[in-house]
Amino acid sequence: MHAQGREFQIIRDYFQCQALTSPQVILGIGDDCALIAPRAGYLQAISVDTSVAGCHFPADASAFDIAYRALNVSLSDLAAMGADAQFFTLALTLPDVDEHWLQAFSEGLFRAAANARVVLAGGDTTRGPLSITVQVHGDLPAGTALLRSGAQVGDYLYVSGCLGDAAAGLKAYQQGDEQPELLRAYLRPEPQLVLGQQLRALASSCIDISDGLLADAGHILAASGVAASIDLESMPLSPALCSYLPYSQALALALTGGDDYQLCFTSHLAPEVLGIEGVYCIGRIQAGSGLQLLNPPAGFTLDKTGFDHFDERI
Amino acid sequence: MHAQGREFQIIRDYFQCQALTSPQVILGIGDDCALIAPRAGYLQAISVDTSVAGCHFPADASAFDIAYRALNVSLSDLAAMGADAQFFTLALTLPDVDEHWLQAFSEGLFRAAANARVVLAGGDTTRGPLSITVQVHGDLPAGTALLRSGAQVGDYLYVSGCLGDAAAGLKAYQQGDEQPELLRAYLRPEPQLVLGQQLRALASSCIDISDGLLADAGHILAASGVAASIDLESMPLSPALCSYLPYSQALALALTGGDDYQLCFTSHLAPEVLGIEGVYCIGRIQAGSGLQLLNPPAGFTLDKTGFDHFDERI
Repeated sequence: MHAQGREFQIIRDYFQCQALTSPQVILGIGDDCALIAPRAGYLQAISVDTSVAGCHFPADASAFDIAYRALNVSLSDLAAMGADAQFFTLALTLPDVDEHWLQAFSEGLFRAAANARVVLAGGDTTRGPLSITVQVHGDLPAGTALLRSGAQVGDYLYVSGCLGDAAAGLKAYQQGDEQPELLRAYLRPEPQLVLGQQLRALASSCIDISDGLLADAGHILAASGVAASIDLESMPLSPALCSYLPYSQALALALTGGDDYQLCFTSHLAPEVLGIEGVYCIGRIQAGSGLQLLNPPAGFTLDKTGFDHFDERI
Repeated sequence: MHAQGREFQIIRDYFQCQALTSPQVILGIGDDCALIAPRAGYLQAISVDTSVAGCHFPADASAFDIAYRALNVSLSDLAAMGADAQFFTLALTLPDVDEHWLQAFSEGLFRAAANARVVLAGGDTTRGPLSITVQVHGDLPAGTALLRSGAQVGDYLYVSGCLGDAAAGLKAYQQGDEQPELLRAYLRPEPQLVLGQQLRALASSCIDISDGLLADAGHILAASGVAASIDLESMPLSPALCSYLPYSQALALALTGGDDYQLCFTSHLAPEVLGIEGVYCIGRIQAGSGLQLLNPPAGFTLDKTGFDHFDERI
């Protein structure tokens, strides 16, 4: 009758051995609450995301990838706010205790955590259908947060990297096509934390692209009360995407495919003044509402808008 | 194809209409992160708990009760730390969108939130097997947290109310017995937040009783490196419990049944000095390790220790 207790002791063992510490985390795993010492003059940024097997990742994805992706997807929200990442909590629901799976899961989790220098501050393990909820915590100097609502008429519209790779990677995987580079974009997204912090002084609005560019840029436009035009000829498409799909299909995925976790942001600074390597200016903010697509290829149509995702922020 | 987007807009509608505000929550629902302004000189206390259908509540429990219980179970961890409750996040995984269910769920959630004066600061909704993850946030003056590790030899051992009702209520429900008062103890636990704050100046250690008294008092003993004796004749048992079960069975549930969410705490102050109404002194802290049960009724045995729960803090 103590088996379950022992099983969950095993789980705890996988999560209690982390090398990183944080001066903000005064008391971590092991009491009723974690205790956090906030930095004076800073606001705290928090965001929570749930990943469910078969919905947010293929049911047969590796435990390493599931954990790596779940943490990075949450950290991407801190990046979109311009926050410095500090720590996270993990609520892990597991159907059973599989030590090999847990070993790989904790390796993926702590690899992503080490990359972003965040500490696991607490959590809960539960028996049930596989599901991972990660809440990330960061902070930023008061008044510097990158909101969705700050875009101004005349601003330039930017994205932080190539789009469509993650959606193409998932599609390739589902169709049995070998596209390791594209699949990696889906399974191993990287949160743009350094860029987000850099943008605090430069951008007027920002969002991370989880639901597709049109959907997420649409959130900026709606929150800011403005319109935008996107020059489709400026859309950054990776060589891997362009060699896998015809241009029109690649472009459609770049516009509507989610899961790239690049940043979409606006700034009054033109590309030559902004001076950030590796970002792409794709359009301009205008008065009005809605999003206009310029220079479509002949016969170009979109059969989805990126709004029809399973999950939504509340 | 926009149906899912609209469905989740419906969900958001249920969670965006709350009357309460918090001076700490600078930016709530609607951007990539919530923004929090911490109180100077305070540490923040955070805790996360997942409730899974069929494991943490009966699969046919009402949506009101599921939500009410899920939030209060998390808030109980703030109480055990002595923290002032401030706000929470909700990660809600739903198999489908049922407006009646959501209406009742949000009513239960906001009823518990209003009772504790906490604000929903953000969240995530996902499609999948029913599961509710709540992370609660509170704060307390630096240096005043009630840890598990502070019990001292000679301290008195207290509990904040009758134990065993919740476990008996669940048992009655599963057996088809009508025991509304006991069932209510299970479905509608109340976090002991006011008491927890009061205890900051009075208690040497504290934990909330979620896994059963023996298991949870055991956490205090292990963390503090001490032993304890409990006088079973001092255990507070409710009239409802004693009229439902024979004394020995009632006592066994009070010792090992979880889910009461009363506080178990230690203090160097004797009951007549402590001066708090409605708490019960049930034993003393001693040197050594382990837990000794004094004055058992004739033939008394325990067939479980309360350690064998599905879920565990990590």
